Amino acid sequence: MTPDLVLYGYWRSSAAYRVRIALNLKGLAYESQPVHLVRDGGEQHGADYRALNPQELVPCLVDGGQVFTQSMAIIEYLDETRPTPPLLPADPAGRARVRALSQLVACDVHPLGNLRVLQHLVTQFHAEDAAKGVWSRHWIGEGFRALEAMLAGNVATGRFCHGDTPSMADACLAPQVYNAVRWKLPLDDFPTIQRIYAACQALEAFQQAAPEAQSDAPAAS
Amino acid sequence: MTPDLVLYGYWRSSAAYRVRIALNLKGLAYESQPVHLVRDGGEQHGADYRALNPQELVPCLVDGGQVFTQSMAIIEYLDETRPTPPLLPADPAGRARVRALSQLVACDVHPLGNLRVLQHLVTQFHAEDAAKGVWSRHWIGEGFRALEAMLAGNVATGRFCHGDTPSMADACLAPQVYNAVRWKLPLDDFPTIQRIYAACQALEAFQQAAPEAQSDAPAAS
Repeated sequence: MTPDLVLYGYWRSSAAYRVRIALNLKGLAYESQPVHLVRDGGEQHGADYRALNPQELVPCLVDGGQVFTQSMAIIEYLDETRPTPPLLPADPAGRARVRALSQLVACDVHPLGNLRVLQHLVTQFHAEDAAKGVWSRHWIGEGFRALEAMLAGNVATGRFCHGDTPSMADACLAPQVYNAVRWKLPLDDFPTIQRIYAACQALEAFQQAAPEAQSDAPAAS
Repeated sequence: MTPDLVLYGYWRSSAAYRVRIALNLKGLAYESQPVHLVRDGGEQHGADYRALNPQELVPCLVDGGQVFTQSMAIIEYLDETRPTPPLLPADPAGRARVRALSQLVACDVHPLGNLRVLQHLVTQFHAEDAAKGVWSRHWIGEGFRALEAMLAGNVATGRFCHGDTPSMADACLAPQVYNAVRWKLPLDDFPTIQRIYAACQALEAFQQAAPEAQSDAPAAS
């Protein structure tokens, strides 16, 4: 079976990781097309990739010739075209909660620690490696304090962010925890986030989406 | 008629501005509750507001006692509970496009120039006012180059970002152009963005949502 779906991504991209989780949760076969974000100044800036995604960012999903960008938009597209199992609940208030938890991560945490932003901190403010770590931990910590409060203080939280099945919110949470660990942010203050992350990591869909499980991950890492 | 909807916002908040546009496009009456983001260290950090939104960010919408955060999640919630006129198209590919255009702005442009980020550039890198402008113009410029390419190069673009009626994408575009003008970013390279912005500004829903039209805007501005 030739998959209709082609995912352009990068093993360590948090946003590509989200989409891999969603594809796996839905049991969808896809072809993986690695885009090396660092080598030779970044393949995402080449003319070929820019024609697919003028933002020069991963991920990008091609479905039968149509091109889709932005991880949350891609996940909702998959949910609307391949509805089983659903990655958003059925009720408007629940859907709004899952989207808000997702956007907390995808709008207010992840973009601030993205590769291009860290590179620009060096260009504009001559940030050293240690300062990049301070910056990243600050924004993940800010986000996780709010996320922990929103998860721990709401009866809708279950085994996962919303109820007892994984949703788009978990597909956003898990890659951000991976990043937090990478930046050595202590997670002691975030017991609910840790508990949900552990529940995610127990699932094959999340395991197979992990950065280190990707074909373009360096062998040594 | 007492409105069920209460919007906590700030006149100059780009994210609150998006939700005001959506509420106005749908003709929904709402009570405006200003949260002053600067005075006394920021009212959004007070215990009262934090109980509503642990992220300590605006906007936040209360609908019949239920609390909703994150501007795009709020707009989709309004679209699902008050569907006329729709702010997303009916087809999955079109919905994905509107969401991607919205997220380009709401994930990859706006959060980088948000008040708390500019404040943190001062704290961590001792950024001066001029450097904050350089930073903001850089990220808006990066985003607008991609947005212009995605709008100009797609037959789905009409009078507005997607077709000839305003969508969530226009509710994200207009406040970001307002910010670009505020930061004095030249817009000559973005003719499609300029054209769509003009079409937005011609509508009463956008005019009444403008920062300067809000009750908490300073009289002199």
